[in-house]
Amino acid sequence: MSPTSNSEPSGVHELIAKRWSPREFLAKPVEPAKLLSVFEAARWASTCFNEQPSRYVTATKDDAAGFQRILGLLVEQNQTWARGAFLLGFSASKRTFTHNGAPNRFAPHDLGSASANLALEAVAQGLHTHFMGGFDAVRARAEFGIPDDFEIGAAFAVGYIDEAAVKPGARSRKSLSETTFGTDWGKAAGFMG
Amino acid sequence: MSPTSNSEPSGVHELIAKRWSPREFLAKPVEPAKLLSVFEAARWASTCFNEQPSRYVTATKDDAAGFQRILGLLVEQNQTWARGAFLLGFSASKRTFTHNGAPNRFAPHDLGSASANLALEAVAQGLHTHFMGGFDAVRARAEFGIPDDFEIGAAFAVGYIDEAAVKPGARSRKSLSETTFGTDWGKAAGFMG
Repeated sequence: MSPTSNSEPSGVHELIAKRWSPREFLAKPVEPAKLLSVFEAARWASTCFNEQPSRYVTATKDDAAGFQRILGLLVEQNQTWARGAFLLGFSASKRTFTHNGAPNRFAPHDLGSASANLALEAVAQGLHTHFMGGFDAVRARAEFGIPDDFEIGAAFAVGYIDEAAVKPGARSRKSLSETTFGTDWGKAAGFMG
Repeated sequence: MSPTSNSEPSGVHELIAKRWSPREFLAKPVEPAKLLSVFEAARWASTCFNEQPSRYVTATKDDAAGFQRILGLLVEQNQTWARGAFLLGFSASKRTFTHNGAPNRFAPHDLGSASANLALEAVAQGLHTHFMGGFDAVRARAEFGIPDDFEIGAAFAVGYIDEAAVKPGARSRKSLSETTFGTDWGKAAGFMG
């Protein structure tokens, strides 16, 4: 069992292999139709009881004031590069099931699924995304009037990069045998041979 | 703003459009190389601080006893169809950051992202997945010795279906204007025109 190490995706679809989180976005505007596809993709992820708890608050550079408001939520080291993206946003997920008001323990999980779809559709559209934990979720709630029944998720940037010039650095991941087990926790699944 | 309604994915990559959650799995074994790709895809989702909190406990029908143990965790109405799948499993996410031991509030979110990658890679491999909230996570922890530092996520099934015979029914989703806002919560983003 190898430790976490630099590696490249092996045997996976190019959408998944090509997704990474750049900092060097281009000022180039993103066509509205592409943004529609990116957020459309998020809607089609699976969710528990088809609750669809995910929501996105967004601003593009066409809304300079809104963009600055979201940018201002980010920690400074994220602001430095995120100001270059065309769209900034943050996600939220509904804490309760709409059909009965009970807590939905899968809401953050399902938000993560929706956002993975969003990130992969961005690749399909020639775009890139960068999700960020480093932002002030408490201020986001107050400044954007997020209802109490929604938990705030991650911030994110969307835009073009210069793919010829900007490449991911060394990519580090746990080995498959560290993440995917048989029925003995910590022991690699049998199909790994 | 249209209410939740039946619809089809529009303008998104076929991997995303074709993913759905069938119940009618075929007994046909899944090639180990395809399973490797499916779980490999999960590794490459983005995670906060590159923590990679996601883990999967799995059993295929080649491990009949293990398969039965996971099947037995599911609520009865899931057992009915899930026994037909080739692989059953459940996911878990590490509650704390390994680099400093602090709580990782993004762990369930990042698990959801990894599992969306898994589901989409399954489509790329000609497979389908079905994630389930309906299982006994408390018993799963006890019976499989899941460490306290891991939160249990969702159960899931992976396998082939007869794509010529088995089709998704009507698909219901919230409209894009109900999920994707500008900086005014609840109001559609400007790029929606």
